[in-house]
Amino acid sequence: MKIARVARGGAISFAVIEGDEVAELDGPPIGGLRFTGNRAPLADVRLLAPVLPSKVIAVGLNYPSVAESIGMPLPSEPLISLKPSTSVIGPEDPIRKPRDVEILDHEAELAVVVNGLVRNADEETATQAILGYTCANDLTSRDLREREGQWTRAKGYDSFCPLGPWIETDVEPLGLRLRARVNGEVRQDANTKEMVFGPVQLVSFVSRVMTLLPGDVICTGTPAGVGAVEPGDVVEVEIEGIGVLRNPVQAAG
Amino acid sequence: MKIARVARGGAISFAVIEGDEVAELDGPPIGGLRFTGNRAPLADVRLLAPVLPSKVIAVGLNYPSVAESIGMPLPSEPLISLKPSTSVIGPEDPIRKPRDVEILDHEAELAVVVNGLVRNADEETATQAILGYTCANDLTSRDLREREGQWTRAKGYDSFCPLGPWIETDVEPLGLRLRARVNGEVRQDANTKEMVFGPVQLVSFVSRVMTLLPGDVICTGTPAGVGAVEPGDVVEVEIEGIGVLRNPVQAAG
Repeated sequence: MKIARVARGGAISFAVIEGDEVAELDGPPIGGLRFTGNRAPLADVRLLAPVLPSKVIAVGLNYPSVAESIGMPLPSEPLISLKPSTSVIGPEDPIRKPRDVEILDHEAELAVVVNGLVRNADEETATQAILGYTCANDLTSRDLREREGQWTRAKGYDSFCPLGPWIETDVEPLGLRLRARVNGEVRQDANTKEMVFGPVQLVSFVSRVMTLLPGDVICTGTPAGVGAVEPGDVVEVEIEGIGVLRNPVQAAG
Repeated sequence: MKIARVARGGAISFAVIEGDEVAELDGPPIGGLRFTGNRAPLADVRLLAPVLPSKVIAVGLNYPSVAESIGMPLPSEPLISLKPSTSVIGPEDPIRKPRDVEILDHEAELAVVVNGLVRNADEETATQAILGYTCANDLTSRDLREREGQWTRAKGYDSFCPLGPWIETDVEPLGLRLRARVNGEVRQDANTKEMVFGPVQLVSFVSRVMTLLPGDVICTGTPAGVGAVEPGDVVEVEIEGIGVLRNPVQAAG
């Protein structure tokens, strides 16, 4: 099932995508789905970020290929940072490159969406706590990351976390082809089975550090091939079995 | 004026402290104060964290004394990390030391509370965007901070961000004595005038990275003297002109 957040004529709602239609939901898709009975053509709605997370956890160095490419050892435990809720945008929303960022890297990632309050979860509980998966672009300023050491600012600017186009609830997360394209050219091409820590392990691990709230998102790390984007570019993150997340890049005003 | 969040008989509200009474507010103290007319003795309410931030920004190396003590140069721009909303607790709430943390350091800090949506603020706008100040304890796992390099996990556990006891709206933030005590013994004793970047500069800087939302908190960094706390200890952060934030330390279950 594909769960989206949609805008139509100024009204915003969650909805399930059924073929070329959307079926409106009464409230967020947490604790079961309640349909309003309203339907609309998919072509008549605008897709928004499919979730409004209280926090986004970004996992670093979770593909051996990226750790090798920057000469860092693989961590023995997941290495996490946070992206603020204010960094989240939806499909087709512009990524805005700030003036104080020199090199803005795309990072295609599988994103896990959590379906409730999760704390100290073992792997069985963590499995139950996953609502589904969406595509994420964990945009990162390469120069700020390298200069500051801390990743928070480099990953935290407004618009640095495109999510979408929807949450897919019926996909096995390991074994999916994951690609990033810039202006149609493939820049990253990997498979989620290469991840060091899988989604269930990550949900369990993070929930032992910080309580996860309904709708919180874990970006599971990016493979090798990250590269710079510039105003005028269009970036796509495509994950097999989920969909394509597409965003133009603009200069921040 | 002292603005608090209080619980009384299961009901939670914002309130203004007036002598030995509290005057209940109708909604959060954003965009003006609306009083309900209800009053209660201060002794009959429990003080909660005075704000529920969507995010807490923690500033590193903002006192020369702490940068010297760990052998790091002063940053030319504020160095920020994020603490999740789930790390916030209130006065007297227990700080829980996780099993996977060896050394848990107290970090006494002046916290700035923001009164609205703030984006790309110059210093004049930033000045207007400050609701007031409270005490913060930016608890940090020294071993995780040193082992991981990234500060997010080290600072992000549930209960690692005590805030309170209230928001003081009428205090000049520079020139305040700031102390941490553990079991009554003074461990940190500094003055906020030593800060490299003051509250207004920090609000302006952070708002150029990420949009600040009403109630968001910036912890302005800690001076030298941080040290370990253990279950059974009681930690106090006292800031002149604001008050005392007191929390016991327990072992996480």
